[in-house]
Amino acid sequence: MPRDLAFTLPALRAAYAGGLRPEAVIAEAFARLDALDDPGIFLFEARETALAEARALGAPDGRPLWGIPYAVKDNIDVADMPTTAACPDFLYRAEMDAAAVARLRALGAICLGKANLDQFATGLVGVRTPYPVPRNAIDPELVPGGSSSGSAVAVARGLVAFSLGTDTAGSGRVPAALNDIVGLKPSLGALSSAGMVPACRTLDTVSLFAHSVGEAWELFGHCAGFDPADPYSRPLPRQRLSPLPRGIAVAVPDAASLRTFGDEVQERDFRATVERLRADGASVREIDLAPFYAVADLLYAGPWVAERVAAVGARLTVSPDTLHEVTRAILAPGLKLSAVDAFKGLYRLEELRRVCAQALEGFDFLCVPTIPCFVTLDEVAADPFGPNSRLGTYTNFVNLLDMCGIAVPTGPRPDGRPGSVTVLARKGEDARAAALALRVERGAAPSLADAPVEDDIAGDEIAIAVCGAHMAGLPLNGELTSRGGRFLREARTSPAYQLFALPGGPPARPGLVRARDGQGAAIALEIWALPRVAFGDFLAGIPAPLAIGTVALEDGLAVKGFLCEPHGLAGGRDITASGGWRAAQAAAL
Amino acid sequence: MPRDLAFTLPALRAAYAGGLRPEAVIAEAFARLDALDDPGIFLFEARETALAEARALGAPDGRPLWGIPYAVKDNIDVADMPTTAACPDFLYRAEMDAAAVARLRALGAICLGKANLDQFATGLVGVRTPYPVPRNAIDPELVPGGSSSGSAVAVARGLVAFSLGTDTAGSGRVPAALNDIVGLKPSLGALSSAGMVPACRTLDTVSLFAHSVGEAWELFGHCAGFDPADPYSRPLPRQRLSPLPRGIAVAVPDAASLRTFGDEVQERDFRATVERLRADGASVREIDLAPFYAVADLLYAGPWVAERVAAVGARLTVSPDTLHEVTRAILAPGLKLSAVDAFKGLYRLEELRRVCAQALEGFDFLCVPTIPCFVTLDEVAADPFGPNSRLGTYTNFVNLLDMCGIAVPTGPRPDGRPGSVTVLARKGEDARAAALALRVERGAAPSLADAPVEDDIAGDEIAIAVCGAHMAGLPLNGELTSRGGRFLREARTSPAYQLFALPGGPPARPGLVRARDGQGAAIALEIWALPRVAFGDFLAGIPAPLAIGTVALEDGLAVKGFLCEPHGLAGGRDITASGGWRAAQAAAL
Repeated sequence: MPRDLAFTLPALRAAYAGGLRPEAVIAEAFARLDALDDPGIFLFEARETALAEARALGAPDGRPLWGIPYAVKDNIDVADMPTTAACPDFLYRAEMDAAAVARLRALGAICLGKANLDQFATGLVGVRTPYPVPRNAIDPELVPGGSSSGSAVAVARGLVAFSLGTDTAGSGRVPAALNDIVGLKPSLGALSSAGMVPACRTLDTVSLFAHSVGEAWELFGHCAGFDPADPYSRPLPRQRLSPLPRGIAVAVPDAASLRTFGDEVQERDFRATVERLRADGASVREIDLAPFYAVADLLYAGPWVAERVAAVGARLTVSPDTLHEVTRAILAPGLKLSAVDAFKGLYRLEELRRVCAQALEGFDFLCVPTIPCFVTLDEVAADPFGPNSRLGTYTNFVNLLDMCGIAVPTGPRPDGRPGSVTVLARKGEDARAAALALRVERGAAPSLADAPVEDDIAGDEIAIAVCGAHMAGLPLNGELTSRGGRFLREARTSPAYQLFALPGGPPARPGLVRARDGQGAAIALEIWALPRVAFGDFLAGIPAPLAIGTVALEDGLAVKGFLCEPHGLAGGRDITASGGWRAAQAAAL
Repeated sequence: MPRDLAFTLPALRAAYAGGLRPEAVIAEAFARLDALDDPGIFLFEARETALAEARALGAPDGRPLWGIPYAVKDNIDVADMPTTAACPDFLYRAEMDAAAVARLRALGAICLGKANLDQFATGLVGVRTPYPVPRNAIDPELVPGGSSSGSAVAVARGLVAFSLGTDTAGSGRVPAALNDIVGLKPSLGALSSAGMVPACRTLDTVSLFAHSVGEAWELFGHCAGFDPADPYSRPLPRQRLSPLPRGIAVAVPDAASLRTFGDEVQERDFRATVERLRADGASVREIDLAPFYAVADLLYAGPWVAERVAAVGARLTVSPDTLHEVTRAILAPGLKLSAVDAFKGLYRLEELRRVCAQALEGFDFLCVPTIPCFVTLDEVAADPFGPNSRLGTYTNFVNLLDMCGIAVPTGPRPDGRPGSVTVLARKGEDARAAALALRVERGAAPSLADAPVEDDIAGDEIAIAVCGAHMAGLPLNGELTSRGGRFLREARTSPAYQLFALPGGPPARPGLVRARDGQGAAIALEIWALPRVAFGDFLAGIPAPLAIGTVALEDGLAVKGFLCEPHGLAGGRDITASGGWRAAQAAAL
């Protein structure tokens, strides 16, 4: 067991492929924890069960998270472990895994324990806990960030490959920025919140911390899915990561509304990221964040604090001493709010949502610093509220506006502190946010080629293989380009197709059909991306005997593409041997 | 000016085409009002302005509502007219038309005045007003129904062709049932509520009363549309009326949850309508309405009464004497509700929404009696609350569940009282609700052929022939309906196709291929219209060996439709002889 093995998904998988045992990884994780001497990270350590689970895994079985260690914020249930929400008196032993934990367990992941948090997930500093405060992984003078403090620090310290946090107002993003890791805040309802202690039920989501955007995105895919047992779960379409089209429109705060509270390095660092986006071809324009800040103001000045009161229950009035004093001070005003206040707050939010939606019209993303400035333990000791509020500058409005986002490290600032921006997108556009996050991650030289490609089209496009007159420069190519089609690449079919020159025309057209056994060849294609909304128009103009079906490619993938009904081949000429339409046409000249 | 001219859209248009002047119609309308001697219908009569507007119309100009008289509930603004919400002290003179009124004015409609209502739209009886109570148009011993009492009576009395009401808990449906007219309650956000005095802002909609479903549907089309000025407006897709496919699935209350409070005639009358639906080919199944009633209970027992308090403002505490005593009694408890109560109510609603959605899974519609029983003025005088509550049995849950619906007369009951059922559908399915309402309207011999079809296929749609699991009621039909697909008609291929049951599934799927000479048959299809912009999405989900090509129809036309690559037939079973997928499936049972 190499001491310097990075606990990332790729490194662990490689090590496991080389024969490393999960037991060794679990032992190493706890050895690292012991060496850190930071009793604030975990509120419960599952040393025995984690080891037992590792042993029980047996031989590698291909499950994607086989033997991967992770941590769970202690407001999310793990079966047979205590849940405290950082309130000792709240403790109960969970009977069942939370929905997200159950998915991870089924994929082979191993939970090392329950991680510290701002009590009842109320806070962004990570110090509002009666337990020891986890140390910031970068600088012990800084707050660890919260509320998912322990989850973020466990990842940043290399104890686990990833962790579950929660995010209601920024708890999944602020500690990511403060500890130089990735924090993915899913669209509300994308991940089940069944088994999570609520903070504000209408705004809560389970969130993910990881070492890289790619890993966070993979984990999102493992955890996301509709859950009928969670009333706030939503049936969002499955998303795939794809590179972004050129010229994406990114909104950033204008000079007047960019708030850094005097941290000029943060301002310069953010502007540098924005410039990289511009250099990468993004269309970046400034907007006024004032209406977004007005939304944020609703969160604690408006009725949503009553949601937190509802979550804590009678404790606030019956046994207030069981609460952290700061938590208590924040929740108390919620008792005085009336139902009329609540509805007025909802109305105001709805008005502001409209204003913010209009501000973002024409934009694909909103990109903001994850935190406006850094906050030290001393500052919070002197003022438990102000510095905490500042940390939420760019996070508090997000859940209220039903946006998703990823906090992504952009590399160290000149003073060594970690840079981080958050890419925000509309509900259900988590994949697009991840795609942009990949391009700003750690100042990566941005390039399409760097991006891992699940399939090479954007979510609002459809890839289509053309084999004849629709290819570039040929007579019908305009039917693609006039509809916003763009060339992706050349390709060939699997060696199982026949190509025929069809009778009729002009234009002359070929017909592609799946061959009967043994007669086929690989046929040259072009793959184009067409906006999905344009596809109906395109299809309406395609005459019989041509059809759009699925074409198997040489590389094992499949793509939508032109096929020909076999009855239409009558009178045609088999040009399979030419290898493709262009070659057949050249040969005919 | 014939005294017996029906003030319906078709009759008025015919009369105008014959040279009748709008001034004569307006004069006749007020003459009819005078003859009725019912001072409770209108709170403000616009005799002068209506006549002036009629004169100013000049010659017919082709606008669809040119010269059509209508009434507006007095909680909706009409420029230069007073708005009272039936609270004299609330009176203000509106500076601007409400959004819906502005649309109607632009189309040539003429507002005759502001119609009476249960004060602040709180009630279903129509007697909670300090003004005279409008007389029920069918039987003066019955309540007129509310809250849109005057709007409904004005239509039922033939004073106007249609009227605007509002609907928060049934105010657009209950008075329709009590006065034997059509009441269309749009999906929330389909019509702008700008310029409407709120009752419960999260549940309010402007609604339409008319003499027939066809007219109500036309008016919906005129009034619907996204309004950026209304935060609760929603960008719903434009809808078109089309006939319904065979085998639509209709849920009705089971025996245990059908509530008629002893009105056995109502129960028999409802069952007769259900039987007609069955005879018409609908698949009718009973469900337990208990969770729907649980939703309804939230409306006045839960926090939503606080929305009404918010709407009334300081009046309830500062000048409670300006309120109707019953209104006051209903609103007062809302002052005691806390924000925590409000959020707990929202959570409970969200849980129940999930339960109700599951109960309606697989159904296209929920069909209920509009009212469970009739209520007399005497009964309400004796108990202002109980009879009112009973009237909301089948309406109170609808807005909370984000459903749309149409209350439609089914013809007189044996005792002469008007029969009425309400067809309910999911948000955005107003057109489908209207299509079913057409089939039960006044006991019409229901037939697909009777239904008016706005167009066979619109320019922004594409027709697609489906031959298997995408057909109505089959497992993949949702892939069409969820994308705005609408059924057009049944059809058959030219007698030149073969149908195979493909291996694999679920779902079981057939494959349609062009036959080699002489082996084919005509295969049953359904033709659906799909918005062109949705086609790319739809296609992306179609797996090999299926493709979309061109299918030749029996009638000589051709249409885009599902085909199968011949290589995919391997392992399949030739079911051509069955004539189609439904028949083959039935034979397999």
